Amino acid sequence: MGTFRTYPAAIKIKDDINSELHHLLLSPKYQIDFSIVSPLYHYSILQHEIAIMDWKTAAQKKCDFVNALIPSEWRLPSPVPPASEQRDVTGVYIQQFLSEREIEITETDAVGIVKHTTGGEWTATEVTQAFCHRAALAHQMVNCLHEIFFEAAIAEAQKLDNYYKAHGKPLGPLHGLPVSLKDQFHVKGVETTMGYVGWIGTFEGQKGTGKEKVFESEMVRELRELGAILFCKTSVPHTLMAGETVNNIIGYTWNPKNRNLACGGSSGGEGALISLKGSPVGFGTDIGGSIRIPAAFNGLYGIRPSSGRLPYEGMANSMDGQNTILSVVGPIGTSVGALKLVIKGILSREPWLHDPLVAEIPWRDEQEQAVLELVKQGGGGQLAFGIMRGDENVTPQPPVKRALDVVVKTVEKLGHKVIEWKPPSHAKALEIAAIPNLDLRRRNRRFYNAPFPLSKHTNTNKTPVHAAFALSGEPMASQISSVYGERKEEYTASRIAATNVAKRQFQKEYMEYWNSTSSLTGTGRPVDAIIAPLAPFPAARPDIAKFGKGENKLKRIMPGLSVWVNLLDYAAATLPVTTVDKAVDKVDEGYVPLNGQDEKVHLSYDPEVYDGAHVAVQIVGRRFQEEKVLALTEILGDALGKHVV
Amino acid sequence: MGTFRTYPAAIKIKDDINSELHHLLLSPKYQIDFSIVSPLYHYSILQHEIAIMDWKTAAQKKCDFVNALIPSEWRLPSPVPPASEQRDVTGVYIQQFLSEREIEITETDAVGIVKHTTGGEWTATEVTQAFCHRAALAHQMVNCLHEIFFEAAIAEAQKLDNYYKAHGKPLGPLHGLPVSLKDQFHVKGVETTMGYVGWIGTFEGQKGTGKEKVFESEMVRELRELGAILFCKTSVPHTLMAGETVNNIIGYTWNPKNRNLACGGSSGGEGALISLKGSPVGFGTDIGGSIRIPAAFNGLYGIRPSSGRLPYEGMANSMDGQNTILSVVGPIGTSVGALKLVIKGILSREPWLHDPLVAEIPWRDEQEQAVLELVKQGGGGQLAFGIMRGDENVTPQPPVKRALDVVVKTVEKLGHKVIEWKPPSHAKALEIAAIPNLDLRRRNRRFYNAPFPLSKHTNTNKTPVHAAFALSGEPMASQISSVYGERKEEYTASRIAATNVAKRQFQKEYMEYWNSTSSLTGTGRPVDAIIAPLAPFPAARPDIAKFGKGENKLKRIMPGLSVWVNLLDYAAATLPVTTVDKAVDKVDEGYVPLNGQDEKVHLSYDPEVYDGAHVAVQIVGRRFQEEKVLALTEILGDALGKHVV
Repeated sequence: MGTFRTYPAAIKIKDDINSELHHLLLSPKYQIDFSIVSPLYHYSILQHEIAIMDWKTAAQKKCDFVNALIPSEWRLPSPVPPASEQRDVTGVYIQQFLSEREIEITETDAVGIVKHTTGGEWTATEVTQAFCHRAALAHQMVNCLHEIFFEAAIAEAQKLDNYYKAHGKPLGPLHGLPVSLKDQFHVKGVETTMGYVGWIGTFEGQKGTGKEKVFESEMVRELRELGAILFCKTSVPHTLMAGETVNNIIGYTWNPKNRNLACGGSSGGEGALISLKGSPVGFGTDIGGSIRIPAAFNGLYGIRPSSGRLPYEGMANSMDGQNTILSVVGPIGTSVGALKLVIKGILSREPWLHDPLVAEIPWRDEQEQAVLELVKQGGGGQLAFGIMRGDENVTPQPPVKRALDVVVKTVEKLGHKVIEWKPPSHAKALEIAAIPNLDLRRRNRRFYNAPFPLSKHTNTNKTPVHAAFALSGEPMASQISSVYGERKEEYTASRIAATNVAKRQFQKEYMEYWNSTSSLTGTGRPVDAIIAPLAPFPAARPDIAKFGKGENKLKRIMPGLSVWVNLLDYAAATLPVTTVDKAVDKVDEGYVPLNGQDEKVHLSYDPEVYDGAHVAVQIVGRRFQEEKVLALTEILGDALGKHVV
Repeated sequence: MGTFRTYPAAIKIKDDINSELHHLLLSPKYQIDFSIVSPLYHYSILQHEIAIMDWKTAAQKKCDFVNALIPSEWRLPSPVPPASEQRDVTGVYIQQFLSEREIEITETDAVGIVKHTTGGEWTATEVTQAFCHRAALAHQMVNCLHEIFFEAAIAEAQKLDNYYKAHGKPLGPLHGLPVSLKDQFHVKGVETTMGYVGWIGTFEGQKGTGKEKVFESEMVRELRELGAILFCKTSVPHTLMAGETVNNIIGYTWNPKNRNLACGGSSGGEGALISLKGSPVGFGTDIGGSIRIPAAFNGLYGIRPSSGRLPYEGMANSMDGQNTILSVVGPIGTSVGALKLVIKGILSREPWLHDPLVAEIPWRDEQEQAVLELVKQGGGGQLAFGIMRGDENVTPQPPVKRALDVVVKTVEKLGHKVIEWKPPSHAKALEIAAIPNLDLRRRNRRFYNAPFPLSKHTNTNKTPVHAAFALSGEPMASQISSVYGERKEEYTASRIAATNVAKRQFQKEYMEYWNSTSSLTGTGRPVDAIIAPLAPFPAARPDIAKFGKGENKLKRIMPGLSVWVNLLDYAAATLPVTTVDKAVDKVDEGYVPLNGQDEKVHLSYDPEVYDGAHVAVQIVGRRFQEEKVLALTEILGDALGKHVV
């Protein structure tokens, strides 16, 4: 029939394999169930199997090639024990494979590192080697890297050291700082697969462009100019549209703090790697929570800046050209200082002269200082926060509830004000963003107006998501097929226009609600930021699907608590608060379900499974208020004793 | 059949009426030819005629109602003579109907006015009365107003005077400054028709919204807070998508300096009114040249800011929700100082807290100062400009060529540098924006991805442009039907996404070309701005269609020289340079056509017809460089002796 390579198989991992999921998913060879989602995919089982051999071979080859780049002296003496024996591979577990000096270096945050490298106390080379070693260990433990270029990194570090010797000063403010990158950044010498088997050996799926392994994204150029060392690219879920990290090349990326759980997504590899301190700071992207979710699930600081603050130019993406809600790029790190350091660095390069979507807003020290000055006045009551404990659709699980309480108490202890946040309907926000939350599901709604390829009017080869799968014939992971598996007609221009208008009207309504809180705060100003959950659970359970069936199945990740921030284009940072304690975070016996989905969230909470997992909240500020959001997050983090996590 | 009110007639004004166009178009009763553009509009001639009676009656009633708001003592004693007898109605012609004091006030620019009103020398009332009087005269001469609210304005002015007496200080920086508004702004007490007969008595075409004559646009609220006086709303072409100003309510707005010519569009009423000094400063909008074209055609300063600099919130619009190229709001005035004054004023109100699309970029005095400091150093060579004399598609007419030469010579006389501007293909820019320039016409291309209503999949009632016509059954003006008259399928999400990507890639290419000029300027920086034409002619000829036939017919206005600025989202101001002098600006005998359209532009130039018309160029700066563009424009305007025009 010859149509196979046009329409990919939409398959799902068998629901009954969850008990063995850990081992099965660690390789691309996991078992798959060929129940085809729609009869509209016309091809035979035989064609399947031939094609699957193709993509499996290609994926395994790529995976083996990358893993072979780990020097033999950095290989683990034996495989990591299963999660049932070794739930947490952070801290003392990973330290056993490192020298004292390597531990000292890699457990210093980015601010501390550049203090030493720009001051000449530490060489870029020893810093880079230490992080390469730790990243190699991290990858062997949780499967978090797509590309490894340790050799090139160490060579760059040596050049920087030579520069320092020759000039007696650092190259730039990030001199010798290792920075990891989500596998959407193009870096010379390596590929960008973004988890697609079909992108192996290509530039964004195309061969012979002349850009393969040569072209670099704008931000990569700027990071190099600042003196940063690039050394690896981290794992993502194929399509980027999931809160878990899974693809057919590397398999599944686990949460290092609790290997029963997902590391989050789509910047999941970043979260896992930085949590293991295999990198001090890295960059992810966020269109619905993809920076904040992995930052939170891994107990890290991360910020989703407003769109147009940092340069996305020259990066690979899903659904490029969809501009109702833009994906944004932002950092994840072990301290708020790390995030400020790299954002300030990038903005000092005037990215608005090289990225048409970046607004000319330099780093504004004065906005950070304004917050610090207020607080310095002492006596309390200088700041005001809104507290949002959930929304109309979902009640967070007990550990998340407790984390919110901890933050509220911390704010109050500092003497500041907290008011209940009673905003315009968040259910409406999800409806506008067309999130496939079951209780809001509408016929013909699309996740972010996704341009679908399967309309008869459309050239299927030109539409990114399905075309990317079609290149190799690889199957979609079940987390993705719940979003993309179904054949639908494309949105029309009128429909998109109506969505854009609805979005703007909702933003207006929300900003006026925010303005109106000035009468409640006692500070004379509206609230300075909102304290809110960013997911209903501390981390996603890979086996969460078993808590529902068929149409009513719980989605792997509910973006309902994160995506309103994207719709509103607000600046939002994660604040790591605590870890799950099974002795404290018991199942809520008095729970009353809001709806069927909410009940499934409730049912999926198991203190035994979650014990030890990170719990974080988000601090949400207004559009382009990155400086203020980071200042507030740092104040709260310091008060929680988490200056560096 | 009952479908008439769903599908409007797309009609065109007879081509053979151009000799009498002036008089015919002055009323909505002009003759029309019922050649229906497409057989897909299903209705009978009979239904036409019934509906036409309806819209004609409604239009005439509205027109009469507004005109009746002109006090009898301000009515012209007799109609203005035809253009053949009185080509120019500005200056001494209009002055004959005004007192010395009224002339003194109305011929002071906005900066001078607020100096007097905030200093207490002039009352807001006498200033307002003087401008209301002059605006009433202007309207009777060139048909430039949609809404008149002189009484409310004078009452507001009296309140301001009382405030001043009570507090001994002005209400705000625009205290007592009359500001005119294009008929897209909602102002309490009056309607917004935007030229649609079907919008009479409604709020944007809807009845019973509770917003009728009550709701105010965000910027209107801010202007009031600043102390500005709103007194009239100015004419637009229906749909806003034309470089001429014509609709079925007020008819045609003529160019006051040369009544053979168009006043431009779509902010045409603003251009005509301010040119007659019936307003010191006003606000228009620009999606393809709609601020710059009327500013230029009327010898005024105007600026198209980058999108997101000034608040568009709560304004009526065409094709709302189309967000590939956004319409922006910006001022037109008689001095650069006027533009700075109102922009600085609006930004001081922090519009980003009330409009979700406004970026948090306050007025940056330091950017203006940086330019002034450079120039102060003296000795020449501090600034560098690119000169663009046309593009691949069109050669400007002799007066525009001369104006460009005048500006280049002025720059060189000041000692600054001018380099030839050799940018990426402007033809490509037009192709991306899908401008229906004949030489670039592609099947199924859309002007700004316009959401068309006629697809069978679409609810026709919800699509703005045709639905607005359908409300009354009124016909489209020929200038509009060339863009909207044809039935086409809607763009799909994939197509829009591809356009958005192409736009961004072009922006990137262009900005890197701009960056590259740093090696040519001798200043160490890339060029500070581009000097460019914004239309191939000093003003459009309403009879320009006669210079071509059928498919090859010249469009009323060629947006090819203005729309690249919108695609690139650059800040661009108009610089009035000279007037056409038939003794100097002779037909270019050595002309060689670039293409058929270009030849028609050439053929349409007639020194006799154009004599006396304003000629302007545009000064184009980078995105969000409004302060710099205005500073440069002021330096050039001063050097040309046009501090106030």
